[in-house]
Order: sequence, then C-alpha cells, then structure tokens
Amino acid sequence: MVDSISRLPGLGRRSARRIVLHLISRKEQTLEPLLSQLSILRNSMVVCEVCGNIDLEKICSICADQNREQQTLCVVENISDLWAIERSGNYRGRYHVLGGVLSAIDGIGPERLNIASLVKRVESQSFNEVIIATNPTIDGRTTSHYLSDLLKSYSIKISRLGYGVPIGGELDYLDESTLQVALATRTNIANKTESENV
Amino acid sequence: MVDSISRLPGLGRRSARRIVLHLISRKEQTLEPLLSQLSILRNSMVVCEVCGNIDLEKICSICADQNREQQTLCVVENISDLWAIERSGNYRGRYHVLGGVLSAIDGIGPERLNIASLVKRVESQSFNEVIIATNPTIDGRTTSHYLSDLLKSYSIKISRLGYGVPIGGELDYLDESTLQVALATRTNIANKTESENV
Repeated sequence: MVDSISRLPGLGRRSARRIVLHLISRKEQTLEPLLSQLSILRNSMVVCEVCGNIDLEKICSICADQNREQQTLCVVENISDLWAIERSGNYRGRYHVLGGVLSAIDGIGPERLNIASLVKRVESQSFNEVIIATNPTIDGRTTSHYLSDLLKSYSIKISRLGYGVPIGGELDYLDESTLQVALATRTNIANKTESENV
Repeated sequence: MVDSISRLPGLGRRSARRIVLHLISRKEQTLEPLLSQLSILRNSMVVCEVCGNIDLEKICSICADQNREQQTLCVVENISDLWAIERSGNYRGRYHVLGGVLSAIDGIGPERLNIASLVKRVESQSFNEVIIATNPTIDGRTTSHYLSDLLKSYSIKISRLGYGVPIGGELDYLDESTLQVALATRTNIANKTESENV
C-alpha cells in the first residue's frame, strides 16, 4: 500500500506512510469516501473519442458543447495542458490531445501519438485555424514542426502560442533564450511605425 | 559580523555562522583575498553618469563602446535586469537603468527614479527606438505606461518585450494571465493569412 501510494506524483515514502496511517485511523471519514470516489473514477471516466480528453461521456463536454467555436482547434500535449488553457478562461474553441510528444530518446514516434486522428479531424471538419500549443521544450517544438509540416497542405491557418516573458515574471530570473525571444517579439506600445512619426 | 552577513540576500543566520567560521579558520586563503576584493569594490566601482550601470569608469563600458548601436535604448528597472539582457547576448543597443519602479504602496514617485535623466537623453540623442523592458509585474507595467506616455510626444518608436510562454516552460505550470497573453499573441507558423489560403 505504502509502495503504490509513494509511486504517485509528488509523494515520497514518508508522506505515503503518513497518508496510509491517516486513512487507517479514521476509516469511516476518509477511507470509505475515497474508495467510492476511486471506483466512480474507474467505472465512469472515459477517453473522449473525438479529442482525447477525459470525461464521463464518450464525447466529452467540450466536444459536445455546440456553443463553442467550431472553427478553431487547439492541439495540446496532455490533458493537463488542456485543463491549463481552460483555466485561463478565454479560449472558446476545440481541443485535440496528442497524449505526449515526439521523442527520439524515448523512442516515441508519430504512430504512438494521436496524430492520425488529428489529420482525420482536419480533413473532415472545416477548421479555420489550428493552434499548436505544445510546450516550448525541445521535444514540444520538434512535435510542433512535425505537425505544421504535416498540416501545411491543408488550407488552414496554423499558429503557435506567443513566446516571451511570463506575466509577473522577473527578467533577472529568466533564461537567456526566453529573453532573446522576448526581445525579438517586442511590440510597439506608442508611435507605431517610423513612417507615422514623420 | 554574523548579523551583517545574515542580512545579505539569500543567507540566513545559520549559513552566516558557517561563513564566518570558514573565514576565521582559513584566514590566509579566504579572508585576505575577500577583504582586498571588497576594498577594490569600494574604491573603484562607480555608477555610470549616462545610464546608471555600475562599472570601473564614470562612463560605463557599454556607454563607451562605439561599436554598439547608438539608436536603440533599452530601459530596465535594475542593474540585474541589464545583466540579464546582456547575458541573453543578442541586444547590441544602449541601456538606461531606472533604479526601481513606480510604487504607490512604497511611496516611490517619478522623482525617485532616473526618469529626468532618461528624458534628457531622449531629447538630446537621436534614438530610433526605446524598448521599455520593465518586468511584467503590476508596478513594472505602471512604470511602463507612465514612461510611454511621457515619451509619446517625441517621435521615437516605443516598444515593450514580448509576453508569452517562456522557452522550456510547461503550460501546466503557467499562470492564467500568461496563457491568456500567449493565446492572444499567437503567431502564424504556416499558411500565413486566410486570403493566401484561397
């Protein structure tokens, strides 16, 4: 028991032991509800057939929601990224969960990811824009290049997230490449173009 | 002694005690060179009269370097931000160090910062662009707005750093406002405009 709990992300053996003791000492209040919630999870959570999100239905609530934009598709690595973008609150389009990224080191090729289903969706539905929102890590950017090459032949706008200084971040703590990108993607805030200044 | 060391950033009383013991136990190898370096620091470091950087000369090496671009001015909060941008390695213009940010809470108004000297530089030199590289914090953005209003009347392009996802960052760990900005500042990577697609 301690073993399997300590294998959960963010927990070590010490915290696992404390959790087990806590669960044993107050069985009714803690162990029982946890058990029933976990069995609900096992019995009712399914992977959405369309986008790869996890929900209670075969078609997830985002894919089923007719009020969301039909024309924009946001491709993410994992469900946690989908949740992060949903939390940010101003994206109203659709999602496609890859289930990971291409990785030469870990031997993950395109066939291991939900890429075939992505191409099928792009072919059959009329999207205006595909936002490739993979993380700006090496593997994430490789995947992004691969996908944009793959989707280039379809007449759809392909975009990526803006890179730069995170809001609330301090320049002093940023890595060099982010600062390079932030300088390169600087935006006018006054006196727009030089021709306008004359 | 322990007191004054523990007041240095990043050090507590415990590490201060260890440092003092270390310095005492090996006087020749550690205390003597540190002492001489500190007195060099005291005697020779001066604040640059032009930009507010710290260097060995009254005019710092960046301001004195004739090979650097004369037309671009980057306004930063502190010297640590200047160093951060220098580390990123691809900025070749000039700097102006404000020495802080406007802050209503801490009672820091424009007269407490190197703003008068900034306006004087903009008036007397022929800059093409002023990059306001304050941090994207509340005070940093207030300062940025204040400065762009102040400099708007001069016919100079005024820009800020690009905001978005930091390179190597993971969407899952980002705050909501950064993700909002990253979605809003998304860039085309293929099939540029919709008109081109037709």
